[in-house]
Amino acid sequence: MERVAASLQGKIMSAAQAARLIRTGMTLGMSGFTIVGYPKAVPQALAESGHARDLTLCIGASVGDELDGALVRAGLVARRYSYQSNGDMRDAINRGTVGYNDMHVSQFPLFVNQGVGPKIDVAVVECAAVTGEGLIPTAAVGCMDAVVRAADRVIVEVNETLPPAFAGMHDLFEIGLPPHARPLNITAPDSRIGTPYLPCPPEKLAAIVLTDREDQPAKFKAVTPISKQVGDNVVRFLRGEVAAGRLPETLGPIQSGVGSVGNAVLQSLSAGGFRGLTMYTEVMQDAALRLIEQGVFDRVSASAVSLEAETRRHFYAHIDEFRDKIVLRPQEISNHPEVIRRLGVIALNTPIEADIYGNVNSTHIMGSQIMNGIGGSGDFTRNARVSIFATESTARGGRISCIVPMVSHVDHTEHDVQVVVTEQGVADLRWKTPRERAELLIENCAHPDYRPLLRRYFARAQRVAPGQHTPHDLDAAFSWHRRYLETGSMKE
Amino acid sequence: MERVAASLQGKIMSAAQAARLIRTGMTLGMSGFTIVGYPKAVPQALAESGHARDLTLCIGASVGDELDGALVRAGLVARRYSYQSNGDMRDAINRGTVGYNDMHVSQFPLFVNQGVGPKIDVAVVECAAVTGEGLIPTAAVGCMDAVVRAADRVIVEVNETLPPAFAGMHDLFEIGLPPHARPLNITAPDSRIGTPYLPCPPEKLAAIVLTDREDQPAKFKAVTPISKQVGDNVVRFLRGEVAAGRLPETLGPIQSGVGSVGNAVLQSLSAGGFRGLTMYTEVMQDAALRLIEQGVFDRVSASAVSLEAETRRHFYAHIDEFRDKIVLRPQEISNHPEVIRRLGVIALNTPIEADIYGNVNSTHIMGSQIMNGIGGSGDFTRNARVSIFATESTARGGRISCIVPMVSHVDHTEHDVQVVVTEQGVADLRWKTPRERAELLIENCAHPDYRPLLRRYFARAQRVAPGQHTPHDLDAAFSWHRRYLETGSMKE
Repeated sequence: MERVAASLQGKIMSAAQAARLIRTGMTLGMSGFTIVGYPKAVPQALAESGHARDLTLCIGASVGDELDGALVRAGLVARRYSYQSNGDMRDAINRGTVGYNDMHVSQFPLFVNQGVGPKIDVAVVECAAVTGEGLIPTAAVGCMDAVVRAADRVIVEVNETLPPAFAGMHDLFEIGLPPHARPLNITAPDSRIGTPYLPCPPEKLAAIVLTDREDQPAKFKAVTPISKQVGDNVVRFLRGEVAAGRLPETLGPIQSGVGSVGNAVLQSLSAGGFRGLTMYTEVMQDAALRLIEQGVFDRVSASAVSLEAETRRHFYAHIDEFRDKIVLRPQEISNHPEVIRRLGVIALNTPIEADIYGNVNSTHIMGSQIMNGIGGSGDFTRNARVSIFATESTARGGRISCIVPMVSHVDHTEHDVQVVVTEQGVADLRWKTPRERAELLIENCAHPDYRPLLRRYFARAQRVAPGQHTPHDLDAAFSWHRRYLETGSMKE
Repeated sequence: MERVAASLQGKIMSAAQAARLIRTGMTLGMSGFTIVGYPKAVPQALAESGHARDLTLCIGASVGDELDGALVRAGLVARRYSYQSNGDMRDAINRGTVGYNDMHVSQFPLFVNQGVGPKIDVAVVECAAVTGEGLIPTAAVGCMDAVVRAADRVIVEVNETLPPAFAGMHDLFEIGLPPHARPLNITAPDSRIGTPYLPCPPEKLAAIVLTDREDQPAKFKAVTPISKQVGDNVVRFLRGEVAAGRLPETLGPIQSGVGSVGNAVLQSLSAGGFRGLTMYTEVMQDAALRLIEQGVFDRVSASAVSLEAETRRHFYAHIDEFRDKIVLRPQEISNHPEVIRRLGVIALNTPIEADIYGNVNSTHIMGSQIMNGIGGSGDFTRNARVSIFATESTARGGRISCIVPMVSHVDHTEHDVQVVVTEQGVADLRWKTPRERAELLIENCAHPDYRPLLRRYFARAQRVAPGQHTPHDLDAAFSWHRRYLETGSMKE
């Protein structure tokens, strides 16, 4: 396959030339999802020239430091949508110098399609190739379809380090706007309903830039003895569901969030003898790729493949063997409630903290400071067949309890959190009253160091609360967070 | 149409005889949704005999006092799922004598289907008729399909006061369990994908009871001058969206919650000259029926029709004229994320309180005391094209502000609440940063009496918060609620 169709080669130019198409005050839509598939050369050229300021960046999820970090350090970013995880970007957001709004992964491109946000002037997207039919995405689709459709002009970075054999791994489908939006006839994780390329009218293609810059390699978070215990507890719970006849032997497609606990759960699934499973998830990481090779996973649907350097080399070298096992979709579809509910996904996510009634905080430290964002955890949790939040019971050397009287910010409500798992055990909150949930979370999930304090809060709340369905003592609900801010520990 | 097929007439018995099929400790699945279509004779017989205690009631939403009230006053109820609004039931839940878990309307029958909750021993459902093909529902479908499928035995109350011409108004469809769940090919509010009856194997039919007891009439909440102003502000916002090209002239199917504000919005739509609209909602009430006759609404999809006595008589007398304009569906489908997102529903719900960052409390008074439940507000809000929360800015004669520093319970997170409207004005929170949201909510929506207090909280939070994306002062976040509990007013 040629990287750039003959008819389009006249549009090839340098990154610096392409960057001149971007002007102060513009809104840019960009590809990239979980730090793969994002443009690198044009953002770097922008950061170096500094000619375009006050930019609004519309990106489906986290991207590399060459984009978020470089542009924010150059002082060029006014607003950033939607999920991010870059250190300098996060600091700018918490300082208030960059405006940030954190949306559900499935909804961000939907809102772009519906024209709710700022008009996208220029799309800057990384591709593996540009054919006469359209754009061949890379290891991530993200929201590139939405921003290419919405933009007046499109700049494509064709990354020549990527295997051309990416072609055929993607499934692009335009849902359309109501009242003409179409059903998604996905009935299995590997259903294909669209085209392997993204259609793009040639007249919109303003520039093609050839690059050889690789994505930042993912940083694999090692499984620790405690996170392994969390993973084992998740798998023990799932085994029980199979034994009770509430889940089939193949469970249902797995969604797994990122990080040490997510990796531990996948490893425990493998060790637990599960085979022939599938994933319907937003990002596929190292552990999942290995489990495909081990036969634990048959088929994986995701919006991105985010790998460590060595695993990535292996993936690219054997991409022909993986291509019929992996479907990469737009984030609007990888995370769509319609498909998640129909397929009966098992959702695994990690909270920052959960409270005694099962509300979960996924985004804010001590109620005010943004960490990353909600990402896809809401899409999956709300629509999953079983939604599990798994975490170690404490953080920062035991000075923070991940089970608290009341979470300082709510991203997932008591209506959506079905099961909480820590290294201590499992709290199955389904069909339980708030008071039953509190007892399960305190006795099964909280760290023993914090159990007496939680029992004391719960007992006091039952004495003082006005009405008793969900007893809270509003004087003391945040006392643990206040103590941490004063003393550096939630312990008394 | 005969009320009971000839082949089934041998199963007819008295309510007292049928009630003997129910024993202590059983789990009962029942029809009924927004206080229509619930069984009356068998629950009354149960309450009178008192022979079956420790019952678990699985009902899709609120039902009349002859069911919830009678059984709870007789001390027969151990647990109640899922939404309720009966005064005596609410008190028992807040006292802790009845266990209650409040689920999303679309999920409750899904979880029943998946066998997650208690096994349903007996279904007790009200019908307009029992034919050789199956059950003809009444003015509500609710979760009757799910509980009939799940139950070992079915007791049917055939209500002879209902027009037999209800036949043909319903659309019953079995989604099925993953991995065999089927797509819902509903592409317009009046799409029909199933059968007009609910299949039920005759061998499951344990009893048929003939009754003539009418549903409790709905209590229409009158539109006040202030709620009219709220409604007018909602319509002004929607007009602006049409003018900006973000919504079509026909808006999209309307979902409207119950109550004075919901009625006011519908009246304002009519007065505002909108015509040819549709509804895709969970309950159709008096205002909507009148708007069908006025041509404001062309087609309505709902799970129930809940009307005042006089409007109901009119509806029943003219049911043949309404039948091709109304589709009644199972609550799993009337509220399904798949359909709501595809159709681009405009969601209108009423909060108990909203906070300065756009989080909404729909269920708990002062954080602890349950009011009713989340109902379908989460299904619609999360998946709507535009989600609006509309309320008067104060309650209890101004002693409670509906805009507070931090809500005392979260049912809808900042990620899901797009627009807040009060009689004061409109806060369009879409794509706004938390700090921008706070300014919009304080200046446009809060009552003038509370604006200085809100500004003071927000300013202090920005001084003291550790990290600044969503500044909160955890010492003072609930100070308004604490003051109300102490003094009876949120004012200083």
